[in-house]
Amino acid sequence: MTVKKNGQTLVFSNPPAVLATAAVVGPKEGEGPLSGWFDVVKPDRLLGMKSWERAECKMVEEAVTLALGKAKVAHKDLDFYLGGDLLHQIITSSFAARSIDVPFFGLYGACATIAEALCLAAVLVDGGFATHVALASSSHHDTAERQFRFPTEFGVQRPVTAQYTVTAVGAAVVGPPGKGKMQITHATVGRVVDYGQKDPMDLGAAMAPAAADTILAHFQDTGRAPESYDLILTGDLASVGHPLCVELLRRAGLVLDGRFVDCGMMLYDETQETVAGGSGCGCSASVFAGYLARNLEQGKFRRILLVATGALHSTTSAQQGESIPCIAHAIVVERSG
Amino acid sequence: MTVKKNGQTLVFSNPPAVLATAAVVGPKEGEGPLSGWFDVVKPDRLLGMKSWERAECKMVEEAVTLALGKAKVAHKDLDFYLGGDLLHQIITSSFAARSIDVPFFGLYGACATIAEALCLAAVLVDGGFATHVALASSSHHDTAERQFRFPTEFGVQRPVTAQYTVTAVGAAVVGPPGKGKMQITHATVGRVVDYGQKDPMDLGAAMAPAAADTILAHFQDTGRAPESYDLILTGDLASVGHPLCVELLRRAGLVLDGRFVDCGMMLYDETQETVAGGSGCGCSASVFAGYLARNLEQGKFRRILLVATGALHSTTSAQQGESIPCIAHAIVVERSG
Repeated sequence: MTVKKNGQTLVFSNPPAVLATAAVVGPKEGEGPLSGWFDVVKPDRLLGMKSWERAECKMVEEAVTLALGKAKVAHKDLDFYLGGDLLHQIITSSFAARSIDVPFFGLYGACATIAEALCLAAVLVDGGFATHVALASSSHHDTAERQFRFPTEFGVQRPVTAQYTVTAVGAAVVGPPGKGKMQITHATVGRVVDYGQKDPMDLGAAMAPAAADTILAHFQDTGRAPESYDLILTGDLASVGHPLCVELLRRAGLVLDGRFVDCGMMLYDETQETVAGGSGCGCSASVFAGYLARNLEQGKFRRILLVATGALHSTTSAQQGESIPCIAHAIVVERSG
Repeated sequence: MTVKKNGQTLVFSNPPAVLATAAVVGPKEGEGPLSGWFDVVKPDRLLGMKSWERAECKMVEEAVTLALGKAKVAHKDLDFYLGGDLLHQIITSSFAARSIDVPFFGLYGACATIAEALCLAAVLVDGGFATHVALASSSHHDTAERQFRFPTEFGVQRPVTAQYTVTAVGAAVVGPPGKGKMQITHATVGRVVDYGQKDPMDLGAAMAPAAADTILAHFQDTGRAPESYDLILTGDLASVGHPLCVELLRRAGLVLDGRFVDCGMMLYDETQETVAGGSGCGCSASVFAGYLARNLEQGKFRRILLVATGALHSTTSAQQGESIPCIAHAIVVERSG
């Protein structure tokens, strides 16, 4: 048996299809530049539920149901559900898995979770362990802010390096090679990288070295040039972290042009007061499941490299003065055929 | 391509080997009935570190290093590290992954994590995506108790249904079929099951239905009889949950005899004041990596079914009055050849 791995990069010999995706977002995300690309924009963040946590779970269930419907995959034909989110013990994903009611793998990769899930879904399908795998990654502004920072009701002022946790879910259904309009061809699995940054109000700077590490590994492993991709997207480095990543890559000899962008900088415009930009497990997940997937399906993009980025700290580690270990996983998604 | 899955059960056509395991435990676990089966018993729970969280991380690093050494797998030949633990944002695993320094998949399955990790490691190897995968699952009494219940210094009295979070790590290295003395032949991936139990001081009762669900699925999918296994072990249902699981299985027509035991009931004896028994991600992980692996290697056991059990709640969900969704994943490990 041939090992389908070169360095950190898995090469899918029979690229699993992305049969369908769905993005469900909150009101603020629905007012941003990518508004038209999402499946559902919610008018408020509570959705009539008794807690924000329930609202986030509801959005995940809706996104997964939508994606399964678009993919025309019935519940009985769904082998696994993979999910992760920012909340302690990933309760959003676990509670959503209760109603999705198929064998469940819980994942934690912070804001890199969507790429971890797409990678493992592709592994399960390409390895012959599954026919259809559903996955989702989510975040919710209020559930995350009160857990990691301050309850939003406090109105605490944020430093300029801080990012705004998005209210958004990205879901996808991965299936057999040759089906659907998109396929996953490669996954570069990240190592944990930590340059000693300790400020949880500046996660972009903490994550930039992890993103650069995975991007460099990807191009070395595949031997590709940046021009192989229509877009190369970091997950949520935002306006402080993305330029740092550009600089780290430049020093390593890799110069990326205007095709190198960041999902956290694409979700909002400057009038929306999100300080450095968006972040959260739903950030790159919803940009992928909305904007990127639609443009791949419509043939505007031929191939993209999504480098989802995650900061793997907790409030405990931050309060204990530990630095912030970070990770980035890269996924190549291209138009089929 | 044949799908290697029947119902919820993956069947590994070329069973990946468990090349080596290592169990590192705390002092209390080292005084229990399984004492002689662990690789390292620590004399205290702080290990000279400045925080219990650092001590837990140190124990994980030590267990993984030990397992890699026993397996004679060099760092350059290690493809992936898979890890999970109980702490918010799985900081133990993420910080350990920083020093292990290979591509990392973060997992969250609560106390079922060891089985989730063994399953995904086997998937990666059997699917041809990796040659060697290291994995670990850990818990630490003081880090978990202060996060989920009360700081241990408070000396809060515990109800009789409560379990005692173990200080323990179980690590393993999974590798190519035909190597080593143990192999993973099947994995039954659990669904999230929730019977509406809301008391986080009685997790055994919450998890029992999930364990029964996965055990029934396993025997239905494989067509095997319980006699196929020398031992069938739940993870940490302990003395309240295990009899409930026995009863749920009996009502479903499956009567298990004395070979049906629980890792949480094996780790301590009645003099150790652990109330209902042990729990935590390190519970079934250390029983597997110590007692079970040694007995499989020595030929005393021919084949075991480990049904690791996890409660997927958080303090947030408990405080919001939500019930406790649970999961159980089952792994078949047998002596090779």
